[in-house]
Amino acid sequence: MDREEGHLQFQPAAAGTVGRGAITAIERSMLSKLLEVCGYPPIRIALWTGQEIASGDQPPIARLVIHDRGALLRMLVNPELFTGDDYSAGRIDVEGDLVGFLDSVYLGLDALPDKSAKARFLRWLNRPRPNTLAGSKANIQHHYDLGNDFYQLWLDTARMQYTCAYYPRPGMSIEEAQIAKLDHVARKLQIKPGDVVYEAGCGWGGLARHLAQNYGVAKVRAYNISQEQVKFARERTQAEGLSDRIEYVLDDYRNMDGKCDAFVSIGMLEHVGVDNYPALGDVIERVLKPGGRGLIHSIGRNRAAPMNAWIEKRIFPGAYPATLAEMMAIFEGHEFSVLDVENLRLHYAATLQAWLDRYEQHTDEIRRMYDERFVRMWRLYLAGSKASFLMGSLQLFQIVFARPRDNTVPMSREHLYPASPKPS
Amino acid sequence: MDREEGHLQFQPAAAGTVGRGAITAIERSMLSKLLEVCGYPPIRIALWTGQEIASGDQPPIARLVIHDRGALLRMLVNPELFTGDDYSAGRIDVEGDLVGFLDSVYLGLDALPDKSAKARFLRWLNRPRPNTLAGSKANIQHHYDLGNDFYQLWLDTARMQYTCAYYPRPGMSIEEAQIAKLDHVARKLQIKPGDVVYEAGCGWGGLARHLAQNYGVAKVRAYNISQEQVKFARERTQAEGLSDRIEYVLDDYRNMDGKCDAFVSIGMLEHVGVDNYPALGDVIERVLKPGGRGLIHSIGRNRAAPMNAWIEKRIFPGAYPATLAEMMAIFEGHEFSVLDVENLRLHYAATLQAWLDRYEQHTDEIRRMYDERFVRMWRLYLAGSKASFLMGSLQLFQIVFARPRDNTVPMSREHLYPASPKPS
Repeated sequence: MDREEGHLQFQPAAAGTVGRGAITAIERSMLSKLLEVCGYPPIRIALWTGQEIASGDQPPIARLVIHDRGALLRMLVNPELFTGDDYSAGRIDVEGDLVGFLDSVYLGLDALPDKSAKARFLRWLNRPRPNTLAGSKANIQHHYDLGNDFYQLWLDTARMQYTCAYYPRPGMSIEEAQIAKLDHVARKLQIKPGDVVYEAGCGWGGLARHLAQNYGVAKVRAYNISQEQVKFARERTQAEGLSDRIEYVLDDYRNMDGKCDAFVSIGMLEHVGVDNYPALGDVIERVLKPGGRGLIHSIGRNRAAPMNAWIEKRIFPGAYPATLAEMMAIFEGHEFSVLDVENLRLHYAATLQAWLDRYEQHTDEIRRMYDERFVRMWRLYLAGSKASFLMGSLQLFQIVFARPRDNTVPMSREHLYPASPKPS
Repeated sequence: MDREEGHLQFQPAAAGTVGRGAITAIERSMLSKLLEVCGYPPIRIALWTGQEIASGDQPPIARLVIHDRGALLRMLVNPELFTGDDYSAGRIDVEGDLVGFLDSVYLGLDALPDKSAKARFLRWLNRPRPNTLAGSKANIQHHYDLGNDFYQLWLDTARMQYTCAYYPRPGMSIEEAQIAKLDHVARKLQIKPGDVVYEAGCGWGGLARHLAQNYGVAKVRAYNISQEQVKFARERTQAEGLSDRIEYVLDDYRNMDGKCDAFVSIGMLEHVGVDNYPALGDVIERVLKPGGRGLIHSIGRNRAAPMNAWIEKRIFPGAYPATLAEMMAIFEGHEFSVLDVENLRLHYAATLQAWLDRYEQHTDEIRRMYDERFVRMWRLYLAGSKASFLMGSLQLFQIVFARPRDNTVPMSREHLYPASPKPS
């Protein structure tokens, strides 16, 4: 046993367990450097050689098993991207607390100085795909057209919300928390009977159906460029007898026309691209009636940084979580008045835990639908996302806005908290 | 009687009333242009010649009396700045609804295209004074060292709050609404017994004394560069027996040191200058403990624009109301997590009306303390500010923030609305 810089312990392979070639001095030095950059997370690393490395001075929260030299080398070259691929392929395993492990490692990567050569290289490598009209369609289909059967296995059953839920009370089920989110949004938008609501990026139509069933709206016009989602949404809407009040439009939000009392977009801004924010503002300027309300719900950042490389490449092409300053480009070009911003970061961590629990109950079916690599890829994505919200590298912002001279805006936000029991 | 472009009626002077020289064709044409730029507000203009001009197609809400040619010419050259000076000097009068009149005229000036030569010239003319350490001191003393006796005549008596109040219920007195504001701020900051609170720009110490009296804080360290205000605050604090828990520091916020559980700044950011926002972020980064909360309360804008020229020149040198995007420069440099933004624009309009009512009850005393010009200048300032908040050209933002990895932040904002009766 020896020690490097007081934070690492390299244990030699036990006799007879040494496998396909021992770790070289260069690899050992690079691994030490990587663990140093990550701030010596409290983990153990088990190599294919049988050798184990203990990092940090705390009891380990997880054991990272690296099954071959290729996986180690890829990790050393681009830890953010290739760790995901190799985990999916089973060349890396994490035994123990996956969320906690990712939390520790992301925290270290996040701490890379913005202007270091490595950070700049990672940014170039991780640049998002362009969101032209055609590009958006390809990017969205990559993710949302995976198949409704897949998402139905682990999202809430009633409203199929693939966005942050809202937990006004601890211990709520994901079903309750997603309904609470939809009601929270409806109250923020002050939806009233007879309203026309435009929704940009409607998912499987959960908000549209909730508003049509419970808020007496005249019409929800819901835009989406995912064919699979719209097909599902139309079927559910027909089954629930709401087709006269919901119109699904299989088109880009940039082609919206007509006029609405409320404009809402939940979980679409991540796919819009910062360069297109003024164009989104133009769309809202065109369609929102005087006296109308708007709400944008999106993953965001405290400071500008690219999306996690692996998630952007394998899971969400074209995605980018913006800062509030960046998001303001939607509003300030047209002098919309921002009334309210709420950060629901911890609600997304809770939502992801609920999804992860349900996901793990269905891995056999998911393996049959896809394969083991897919099962592992999505586990890593859900766990990594939870870690990002828990550690504060991702935020969830709900922004409410109105026309600049609208003096019918509510004086306080008390109406958002109507019937819920006060904490004792 | 004749008509120009269907929105103006020039009525000739009645026989025998024609005074010091009739209006020239050029002046008439420039005045027509000015009224066109303002969107033909529904007002009447009475000239020193006895001539009257009716603008707009609606019944007039006020009568603008221009007592001499100099006032007319100054108005035509730079309406924003010189109207204020000439109103103060009594060379212009507004008969009828002063707030409504200003609302109409500002609305028109606001509508000037950003890139017009006139708008650019106005921006240059109205560029704010620099907020260096010495410059800030001069700028602040210009306004806040006018004399405590003056502000005591029309602010709330108990807490002397010269910032936006909070009206959770209609019909509250300014005293009640200012206490409600302080409690709203304290709840947003989650102030608890034993906390150390740092306040940047403490006015007459109203928040500091409220927290010391009602929230069991260990210490409020309150910074201010206005000697008059600090003198007053220290006297009140001693009289109320709170001197052991409040330390007033007659110094710039940039010199803050030590550590605090809560950082608060109410109505100072307007005087900080956008260029200094990152430095303000540096100060907060230096002093805020892990797990601490911060709140910044400031006048703002929906889109970037200079301060009203006359107010910046005569009332508030160096002041600038920033947009939310601009304000984010405080937070995003250090990855503070913005938890909550609330826009209290209409509360400031209500606050200004309350101040204006009380101000008008004391004009005789104010005239004795200063002079008629001062009385008129401040009336115009208060009325103009109310008009700006009512018409949405100014906003009031409260921004709550925390450290990025602080998972003790509240899950919802329900705790902000604890005991207040629900509207029926």
